[in-house]
Amino acid sequence: MARAAIAAALPGQGAVAEAMGYACEGGKGLRALLVVESARLHGLEGKAGPVAGAIEALHAYSLVHDDLPCMDDDDLRRGRPTVHRKWDEATAVLAGDALQSLAFGLVAGADLPAGARIALVQSLSEAAGVAGMVGGQAADIAAETAQMPLTLPEIEALQAGKTGALITWSALAGPRMAGKESADLRHYGDAVGRAFQIFDDILDVEGSAEAVGKAVGKDAARGKATFVSLLGLEPARERAEALVAEAIAALEPWGQEAETLRELARFVIARRS
Amino acid sequence: MARAAIAAALPGQGAVAEAMGYACEGGKGLRALLVVESARLHGLEGKAGPVAGAIEALHAYSLVHDDLPCMDDDDLRRGRPTVHRKWDEATAVLAGDALQSLAFGLVAGADLPAGARIALVQSLSEAAGVAGMVGGQAADIAAETAQMPLTLPEIEALQAGKTGALITWSALAGPRMAGKESADLRHYGDAVGRAFQIFDDILDVEGSAEAVGKAVGKDAARGKATFVSLLGLEPARERAEALVAEAIAALEPWGQEAETLRELARFVIARRS
Repeated sequence: MARAAIAAALPGQGAVAEAMGYACEGGKGLRALLVVESARLHGLEGKAGPVAGAIEALHAYSLVHDDLPCMDDDDLRRGRPTVHRKWDEATAVLAGDALQSLAFGLVAGADLPAGARIALVQSLSEAAGVAGMVGGQAADIAAETAQMPLTLPEIEALQAGKTGALITWSALAGPRMAGKESADLRHYGDAVGRAFQIFDDILDVEGSAEAVGKAVGKDAARGKATFVSLLGLEPARERAEALVAEAIAALEPWGQEAETLRELARFVIARRS
Repeated sequence: MARAAIAAALPGQGAVAEAMGYACEGGKGLRALLVVESARLHGLEGKAGPVAGAIEALHAYSLVHDDLPCMDDDDLRRGRPTVHRKWDEATAVLAGDALQSLAFGLVAGADLPAGARIALVQSLSEAAGVAGMVGGQAADIAAETAQMPLTLPEIEALQAGKTGALITWSALAGPRMAGKESADLRHYGDAVGRAFQIFDDILDVEGSAEAVGKAVGKDAARGKATFVSLLGLEPARERAEALVAEAIAALEPWGQEAETLRELARFVIARRS
């Protein structure tokens, strides 16, 4: 559903348009699923397509830019060459830029009341911007450049921006589509986002590049402080499990309808990529 | 007014936030002025601040990314070092990214009916994305990489995206803020955008780097086809003048209220930078 919304919005030709489509392929689609399931709790799953497409487009843009030589300098993503390796850096910068534009256009074009669309656009701008995702990525790069290992609270703050902001936004998409807010779903999204990032650190230590679909062992090679390097593998895993339990508990008021959201929370620490 | 809206939205610290502010300084503010004056025609100039700020933030993002080594590789912009020269490439990529997020947030947060804000967000997404500005920049880079000199109609199509889309969006901001469309202002914006780009080509030949605030003589050095190289200096100037006359004529129904818009059209081919 997310992919269809993205494909329908892309023009047919040109390297940048091709690269945009390529960058949106092959992911787990976790954020899109969170949007659809969060929308389902409000009876709005049928209208979630463009919103789910938007968050996947925005996520894809962030990966394309994060992989650039001047950022994390990665050659492999989702098991395939990164966009700047398959095309070139200019195409990667432009494809990422246009994916971000597309994301806001998709949200704004959703079949929802204008007020709900505005709330989604405003919150997406905050989650994506310097106070959210970009701020987290900037802090990550700054810490690495300064070769300054971070403390646990600093890592948590950084990851809340870098990964957490978009995951929380996805979990809150449903209530926002319905013109509401939800403390439960915010709690759920925050906990899932934190568990997700801790498990990413675990995969970087335990996973194989083939299974994970991107380079592994990078954190240790760079001497980067992570949950695993600071806590150890098992305590990090326990922390991720506790966060998943917390996320599931937050869904208690939602009953059986939220079962897929519970499964998604469990998946976050059971995935191989 | 545009600058105040941007400044109010930025967090206080960090290289990326600093670079975002830096990138928004020192420009002519042509697009912001177009927004304010277009809003004035609909009695909405008092509410134009965030919309004007948005277009300047979006424009600034495009300059920061266009200046990157993998794109136009420029050291000088608005008479000062480009963002990646003053900071580094990662900061430039991230500052541009966050300025784009900010732009959509500013439009979405304007004090206007939700329907008008949605129309502004949707049209901004189109103007900024792969069918607009990014598409134009991609075509520009593709032509240069292929060392394929473009024809006049190809240059016009490219510039309609690269520069024209945001200028036309600015001219149409007023009617959209009022929940309307305007064929006159679209005509005006298209003609101003085309005149602007032709005059940019002229400045690249005639201007000094000191006055223009960025490197000049680049087009000829790169063997790039422009209005000047294809038509000659004087015919290019005549064409720009004809477009300005066309823009001014399109404002005829708007009477005295549109005088500043007429002046802005004249300024486009009288500026030194």
